[in-house]
Amino acid sequence: MIPRYSRPAMTAIWSPETKFRIWFEIEAHAADAMAELGVIPKEAAKTIWAKGKDAKFDVERIDAIEAEVKHDVIAFLTHVSEIVGPEARYMHSGMTSSDVLDTCLNVQLVRAADILLADIDALLAALKRRAFEHKLTPTVGRSHGIHAEPTTFGLKLAQAYAEFARNRERLVAARKEVATCAISGAVGTFAQVDPRVEEHVAKAMGLAVEPVSTQVIPRDRHAMYFATLGVIASSIERLAIEIRHLQRTEVLEAEEFFSEKQKGSSAMPHKRNPVLTENVTGLARMVRSYALPAMENVALWHERDISHSSVERMIGPDATVTLDFALARLAGVIDKLIVYPANMQKNMDRLGGLIHSQRVLIALTKAGVSREDAYRLVQRNAMKVWSGEEKDFLALLKKDPDVKAKMSDKELEANFDLDHHYKNVDTIFKRVFGAS
Amino acid sequence: MIPRYSRPAMTAIWSPETKFRIWFEIEAHAADAMAELGVIPKEAAKTIWAKGKDAKFDVERIDAIEAEVKHDVIAFLTHVSEIVGPEARYMHSGMTSSDVLDTCLNVQLVRAADILLADIDALLAALKRRAFEHKLTPTVGRSHGIHAEPTTFGLKLAQAYAEFARNRERLVAARKEVATCAISGAVGTFAQVDPRVEEHVAKAMGLAVEPVSTQVIPRDRHAMYFATLGVIASSIERLAIEIRHLQRTEVLEAEEFFSEKQKGSSAMPHKRNPVLTENVTGLARMVRSYALPAMENVALWHERDISHSSVERMIGPDATVTLDFALARLAGVIDKLIVYPANMQKNMDRLGGLIHSQRVLIALTKAGVSREDAYRLVQRNAMKVWSGEEKDFLALLKKDPDVKAKMSDKELEANFDLDHHYKNVDTIFKRVFGAS
Amino acid sequence: MIPRYSRPAMTAIWSPETKFRIWFEIEAHAADAMAELGVIPKEAAKTIWAKGKDAKFDVERIDAIEAEVKHDVIAFLTHVSEIVGPEARYMHSGMTSSDVLDTCLNVQLVRAADILLADIDALLAALKRRAFEHKLTPTVGRSHGIHAEPTTFGLKLAQAYAEFARNRERLVAARKEVATCAISGAVGTFAQVDPRVEEHVAKAMGLAVEPVSTQVIPRDRHAMYFATLGVIASSIERLAIEIRHLQRTEVLEAEEFFSEKQKGSSAMPHKRNPVLTENVTGLARMVRSYALPAMENVALWHERDISHSSVERMIGPDATVTLDFALARLAGVIDKLIVYPANMQKNMDRLGGLIHSQRVLIALTKAGVSREDAYRLVQRNAMKVWSGEEKDFLALLKKDPDVKAKMSDKELEANFDLDHHYKNVDTIFKRVFGAS
Amino acid sequence: MIPRYSRPAMTAIWSPETKFRIWFEIEAHAADAMAELGVIPKEAAKTIWAKGKDAKFDVERIDAIEAEVKHDVIAFLTHVSEIVGPEARYMHSGMTSSDVLDTCLNVQLVRAADILLADIDALLAALKRRAFEHKLTPTVGRSHGIHAEPTTFGLKLAQAYAEFARNRERLVAARKEVATCAISGAVGTFAQVDPRVEEHVAKAMGLAVEPVSTQVIPRDRHAMYFATLGVIASSIERLAIEIRHLQRTEVLEAEEFFSEKQKGSSAMPHKRNPVLTENVTGLARMVRSYALPAMENVALWHERDISHSSVERMIGPDATVTLDFALARLAGVIDKLIVYPANMQKNMDRLGGLIHSQRVLIALTKAGVSREDAYRLVQRNAMKVWSGEEKDFLALLKKDPDVKAKMSDKELEANFDLDHHYKNVDTIFKRVFGAS
Repeated sequence: MIPRYSRPAMTAIWSPETKFRIWFEIEAHAADAMAELGVIPKEAAKTIWAKGKDAKFDVERIDAIEAEVKHDVIAFLTHVSEIVGPEARYMHSGMTSSDVLDTCLNVQLVRAADILLADIDALLAALKRRAFEHKLTPTVGRSHGIHAEPTTFGLKLAQAYAEFARNRERLVAARKEVATCAISGAVGTFAQVDPRVEEHVAKAMGLAVEPVSTQVIPRDRHAMYFATLGVIASSIERLAIEIRHLQRTEVLEAEEFFSEKQKGSSAMPHKRNPVLTENVTGLARMVRSYALPAMENVALWHERDISHSSVERMIGPDATVTLDFALARLAGVIDKLIVYPANMQKNMDRLGGLIHSQRVLIALTKAGVSREDAYRLVQRNAMKVWSGEEKDFLALLKKDPDVKAKMSDKELEANFDLDHHYKNVDTIFKRVFGAS
Repeated sequence: MIPRYSRPAMTAIWSPETKFRIWFEIEAHAADAMAELGVIPKEAAKTIWAKGKDAKFDVERIDAIEAEVKHDVIAFLTHVSEIVGPEARYMHSGMTSSDVLDTCLNVQLVRAADILLADIDALLAALKRRAFEHKLTPTVGRSHGIHAEPTTFGLKLAQAYAEFARNRERLVAARKEVATCAISGAVGTFAQVDPRVEEHVAKAMGLAVEPVSTQVIPRDRHAMYFATLGVIASSIERLAIEIRHLQRTEVLEAEEFFSEKQKGSSAMPHKRNPVLTENVTGLARMVRSYALPAMENVALWHERDISHSSVERMIGPDATVTLDFALARLAGVIDKLIVYPANMQKNMDRLGGLIHSQRVLIALTKAGVSREDAYRLVQRNAMKVWSGEEKDFLALLKKDPDVKAKMSDKELEANFDLDHHYKNVDTIFKRVFGAS
Repeated sequence: MIPRYSRPAMTAIWSPETKFRIWFEIEAHAADAMAELGVIPKEAAKTIWAKGKDAKFDVERIDAIEAEVKHDVIAFLTHVSEIVGPEARYMHSGMTSSDVLDTCLNVQLVRAADILLADIDALLAALKRRAFEHKLTPTVGRSHGIHAEPTTFGLKLAQAYAEFARNRERLVAARKEVATCAISGAVGTFAQVDPRVEEHVAKAMGLAVEPVSTQVIPRDRHAMYFATLGVIASSIERLAIEIRHLQRTEVLEAEEFFSEKQKGSSAMPHKRNPVLTENVTGLARMVRSYALPAMENVALWHERDISHSSVERMIGPDATVTLDFALARLAGVIDKLIVYPANMQKNMDRLGGLIHSQRVLIALTKAGVSREDAYRLVQRNAMKVWSGEEKDFLALLKKDPDVKAKMSDKELEANFDLDHHYKNVDTIFKRVFGAS
Repeated sequence: MIPRYSRPAMTAIWSPETKFRIWFEIEAHAADAMAELGVIPKEAAKTIWAKGKDAKFDVERIDAIEAEVKHDVIAFLTHVSEIVGPEARYMHSGMTSSDVLDTCLNVQLVRAADILLADIDALLAALKRRAFEHKLTPTVGRSHGIHAEPTTFGLKLAQAYAEFARNRERLVAARKEVATCAISGAVGTFAQVDPRVEEHVAKAMGLAVEPVSTQVIPRDRHAMYFATLGVIASSIERLAIEIRHLQRTEVLEAEEFFSEKQKGSSAMPHKRNPVLTENVTGLARMVRSYALPAMENVALWHERDISHSSVERMIGPDATVTLDFALARLAGVIDKLIVYPANMQKNMDRLGGLIHSQRVLIALTKAGVSREDAYRLVQRNAMKVWSGEEKDFLALLKKDPDVKAKMSDKELEANFDLDHHYKNVDTIFKRVFGAS
């Protein structure tokens, strides 16, 4: 998480101020439940809320206490008692630090997921708008980087839309994974705290109850969360690489928006580089890498050790802030992407009609040629065009006696129109975007 | 995937024989749909099934053809035409290799998921049985490897049960992710093949239709699948490490079953080592590592490149076979685990009652001592027992004048019973296993 | 490790036969040293060699014994005693299984490194030959996929040569890391075995003595080895991606060799795809991923646990066999690469001279224009050519009154020759390949 | 990189101030060389140094310019021209941004390596001191977590010393890998900049010349650097886990220093947890994970793309700052580690002499019993002690008639002394620490 790749709303979730506020809410809600159960005086709970609700917790003061006691939650509670007064001693009764820390982390991850969901929604909206705009913009489909058959630019974007729609679903599931609360005490037995306290806090914080915790909320939940972010990052990389390819000098079918005062290169004034998508390609590598320590965090010793904590202090903010930034940047790229349909057409025409070779192959088969013979017939003409020896695949076929023997010129020509390739675009769009 | 860590049912899914059989089914079902649509003769589809249904495809022959044409699907189709005869030319019409390859891979991954689900079910059953068996077997809960407070061995197993129940849900979701079929042609436009062919094949193979494919089924699906296996592997590691800890010489609360003729060490005849759980710890590292190349596979170029293929040829079998083996081995370990309740009790007694320190702390707070003072009171007595200077925490407290001033001996003693810690075990078991 | 991506010499290193042969040699050399020290009878050592030297160890028999005793080294020793007779009881005296297993693994890794070094040498030879062949073949240098300035195809290959020369050095270092031998007994104290036995075996097996082992040879050595393979794999990916880019339809500056009977696509007969480099791109992902479990293997518990073993049984063969295959395949691609200098020239000419923009910028600066003004002057002309509005950058500059005011036509033209860019090619080649 | 896990010297390397200062030095040294070559006026170079040498570059001002031009080096040069005046236009002549950025990054990584080397030295010093202190402190060696045979605590530390000594060598090599400088222009051809400029800057900055760069310094160098940090982190994890094991309640052979006011648990006042080593265990996971994006950075497109940049902006500081912190923390732990020799002895005595089983096995073999029979004899007595049925292994052996038949009581007793195990400690210490 570095300022250059951070956006304020996400960063705020991970600030000490937010953290201490959430800690307070967890403790205060717990106090409410304990008061209700008669474990602590009702007045105490009231006072805690009254004095703490709008208090500003002093981060530096808490840090100073922690430097001495070497325990963050104790430092916080000590500071709260400075604000709340003697009733503060009723806070945290029967609870353990992890009850506060883990529930807080999950609140933060849930809030982060909500921002990420909004990011994906914005990206989906941009993809959808541009997909419909270019629903029938002809462009060549490529496999292995080699021209294959015609497709449309809208279909490319529809695929990206479908992919991020899946990512949205995954993120909703991942959010649910971590939306749990544990107030179960030192080793999760509720020995010193009633399970109803947990139920109350969970509800108040918008979480579900963790069915069984040890001292901690089990980290397989978080592993799944960060692994999901890694998959989303991989989809970002895919779309970014598509655009980087399209912007290559030799291809130039699309281009990132280039603001007027922007300078592409300190040395070469002519350059307009796909720097945004290259940037998110790198960010995707980072988000993906965070999945690993998250998975290694699962195997804590016995009822818990604290090795996960340093990891989460880093990847909690790093993964969510970076992914938020990358998603937002990518949505902007798609939204303002400059598309060059003329170049798409020009590129598609480069191979002298070879992109229709399969249709000819099929037509020959239908005309009674064996598949193997048809393949050889087509390939021997195709290779002449491919090598540059000849320019026009159709003209060549018309001259091939073995082809001629099976198909008339008109029959051959019928295999070279584009509309044939686009007859199912509607079907695909309906599958992806629904009937509209 | 090595024989030592493989089980036959899972290995069979990845054999060439199974693969070619699935390829044939995809092609033959596609032929059915094309015949129905009038694209190819109905007789052709019938002949394909008639001749191919029980045919044994000759793997060596296919390999020999591939060595020449350097294309696996063409090699297969050539071999099928040797079996089916001239009608074979109607197969694969308008389809592309990836239609067959990707749909087949997904069939294999779905079948692998089914075996893994059964593995998890077996592990869950073992965990449940042993959890109820030891529902109230007292054992010490440990945080940071240090004694914390009492728990039960059944609760430890209940937590593992809940974790693998979550893994089961994740795997069901991951299975659904990859249960798709694409028969959409060279760049996914259905230019040469009717979408209804895809619908028919999908249904016949137990899959859903891929809403929009390019040439390939998008690899974010597979990334999610393998990431999920990585999370499951991490949970395996957690449970394995728990058992490894419990079997340590100094702890010895549980032990892997040790068969009669087994030798623990070539050099030290007295050794009984937790080799099975150590083994699955290593296997977990492997399964986890496969998530990464799976994520890197997402960003294929344009409508596809083939870089994912070599990865999947390796991790497809490696990840599923290894996870299958590890899950089965772990289920066996749990099923036959030797549990030593007496050692659990002995260990729990080691700290002279310190594990009850929190209860004393709370009791003092309730007796009117401030939290900070109570903490100091408890700690100054606890440290003497901790250091070995004194043996009996309760006796010591009874002698402390500041404690005495607030609590009678009887009040103190009430904080040292175990039942207090187990009063909510039922509640937790109900949450995890449901009412029964 | 799958047959498709395996070569026999590397695979043989990892066969059970090779393993048992190495085990025997370690045990027999150890017996020699013990006999020399008077620990065991000299006759015993002689008999062990005499009977075992040319014996064929029966892998199935050993597996059968292991199935019973569940210990691989004990199973092996039992089988050896069937061959050697009663003197076999003197083998392994005071040794522990890991002495044999770890030393054997290191022998295998050293041999694997030797093959990989030969692979790199072959790749370096191909790169050097082609680099000199195309030392002055003009091609455009690209940053961000956008034309930047002229370079030569030979320089591209020289960079790859330098990169793999570094990889060679790294591999030599990695080989040295694992070239150690430990015969130090149960916990590495030489309690039951004289350190001179270790020295003898090390020397006989071409290894160095491990200065301090526990029960095992420390795994940081192996982590470094596999991490190094991961870096080499990343360089493979870089070169593979370069070729994949060059073979794109729109670029087509180079192409993988395409054999006569090869079929590029089952559906599109015209396709010639860069399948070999795409393939090694995927293989590189795999080799890279193995670095992770190798690093996780370092932190074994106390004097050792066995969790590393299952990992190494997999990544030992998988990483070395796959990297061997990828290196050999890549060397073949480079060796037979079809290069299209005419296309390189054509591509370089696409931007109407924009690739010379920096030289014009510098010339303007030298003519007294401030850097900022010069940048603006160049950019305003460049953008017209970039957008396609104009075709000839030089002609445009000649017409720009502000440029005219500072430079004559002839002065401008001087900035558009290629030789200027190649004047230091010799210097670079000397740096990379040495004086010749 | 978060403040909690950062130390100021390392953090300073990555501050914007340091970065801009290095950028200036690179540009000013380059200006010197250009002046010497007559490319720019000598006065210009002088002025640049004179005005820039002690200037404080205004980070906010540079950021503001970058926000407009969207190019960091151009923003910097613009700001420098505000300080230096018109002569600034001679800076950066013929250079490209990457010349500055990459050389700067390498300077930073070299400086970071120097700090890390000092960290390792401190750790080595602590390990050596404690190793000699406990050279002959008896403790049990454990394999699989199970008691094996006696070793000494000093030997454990000597192994850690040897491991970190290896890590030191690796880091020296990794430092050398990245200690290169490139001033080679837009695509590395030196078209606009003389190679002697590069030579001059390299020397001035303490670097070697990069033999062949494209636009960038090749990233295999950085991949190797970060992979090496990952291996070092793995060794940190190993030593940390050793200490965590030793501090477990049931083992308690060593303990992290616990300061007087420190609180182990908010809920349980008796706790003293190994939180420092748990913390570095987590940090090790992070440092290890950064190796992956570093490896993915190698395969930049053509002469470069910018995807590596966002990665390096994050892992440059994150990996070095985190590793610095972890190494320093670990050195402190070792330095102040509380060692409990009495507990070590007590633990060693737990198994009633079973840890001597191997010596008895060997003695029986020497007395003429076959290895298989000796193993069975030892195991049948060992298992009774292991199970707790019997307490004293030696006494049991003395009563076994089959043992009795081969060995006298005195002969048996000779196998139960500790000194036997320590006779080679000197040899090992000499290997590790050298003669002293």
